[in-house]
Amino acid sequence: MKINYPKGIPSFRETTSQEKKIRKRVHTAANRGMDFEKAINTTNEYYLEKDLALITKRPTPINVVKVDYEHGCKIVSAYFEKQSTTDYNGVYKGHYLDFEAKTTNSKTSLPINNIPIQQIEHLKSVNKHGGIAFFLVYWRTLHEVYLIKANDMIEYFENHARKSMPYSEMKRIGHQVKESLRPRFDYLALVETFLLEGEQ
Amino acid sequence: MKINYPKGIPSFRETTSQEKKIRKRVHTAANRGMDFEKAINTTNEYYLEKDLALITKRPTPINVVKVDYEHGCKIVSAYFEKQSTTDYNGVYKGHYLDFEAKTTNSKTSLPINNIPIQQIEHLKSVNKHGGIAFFLVYWRTLHEVYLIKANDMIEYFENHARKSMPYSEMKRIGHQVKESLRPRFDYLALVETFLLEGEQ
Repeated sequence: MKINYPKGIPSFRETTSQEKKIRKRVHTAANRGMDFEKAINTTNEYYLEKDLALITKRPTPINVVKVDYEHGCKIVSAYFEKQSTTDYNGVYKGHYLDFEAKTTNSKTSLPINNIPIQQIEHLKSVNKHGGIAFFLVYWRTLHEVYLIKANDMIEYFENHARKSMPYSEMKRIGHQVKESLRPRFDYLALVETFLLEGEQ
Repeated sequence: MKINYPKGIPSFRETTSQEKKIRKRVHTAANRGMDFEKAINTTNEYYLEKDLALITKRPTPINVVKVDYEHGCKIVSAYFEKQSTTDYNGVYKGHYLDFEAKTTNSKTSLPINNIPIQQIEHLKSVNKHGGIAFFLVYWRTLHEVYLIKANDMIEYFENHARKSMPYSEMKRIGHQVKESLRPRFDYLALVETFLLEGEQ
């Protein structure tokens, strides 16, 4: 439901509890992903410093509606868009790497119904062109990270009506990423062992 | 010079010729790059359709300052940021590809003083990790596109105080990209011939 609030008097109006709830939900969802995003960025900086790999984060796509050219090209109206590809890609020993980072607060299962279909298509395409595609999944409550091959995730996604992957299943088909101080989550070690050995 | 216009009465004020000039300059610079960007995007769509390669454009990074959570997460204050990497990357036959698109209106030389130093570092890093790095340069007035290896451009950049590359030099060290209806600018043909043959 879209509510059109009267314009021009927002400061005279109390924030409703419904609005507070929405605001909290938005913030929580953003923060949940944020911790893990930062940890991955730190890991990638480490890889770059040590000359191991070059992995970059794709900026969040934003649909710019209106720009104020009179005040230093300030964007005054814009909306976040869904990433149609993935969060990260880059190069490791000449190989193209492409992955998506997911975070869940659940202890028992990862919801996968919110994976956009374009993302599935994108990852399939990465594999088709000889790239290395995977997911990094952060089980926030358990504080564990798993690497799972895109193909394995996609196969599960396409064969299960109940769009979530149990923790036990991820432990079975995924690989736990070791955590340390530097690098925070050494996912390249697993890429080296499980994804470069023609296992794809 | 920053002019602080009185707030709240913009509609009662005539747009000054100075403002018109600024607005036109901003638009022109954006459009100049836009044509070529569209042509590359179309080319990349063709490559994807024909199962030849997966090349994606990195979204323009935007620094979001303020979001209005009460109106569908509308961004109400944000600024464009300089791309610290490049415009495009992707995978071709398992190889990592990374390139920047440049447009010039000049008939005689390409200004290279505006290439950010982070972009140079990024492209060097791509090469170091076994990726394929290059520039696509659109000579708008001449309607010609050249592919030039990142290493060649960087070498020129670092050895010439006069930060522009003459057209003659680009013809000498670059490779002209064939234009057709589909694909618009077949740069992969040149990648195949000049960049995959250990010539890097």
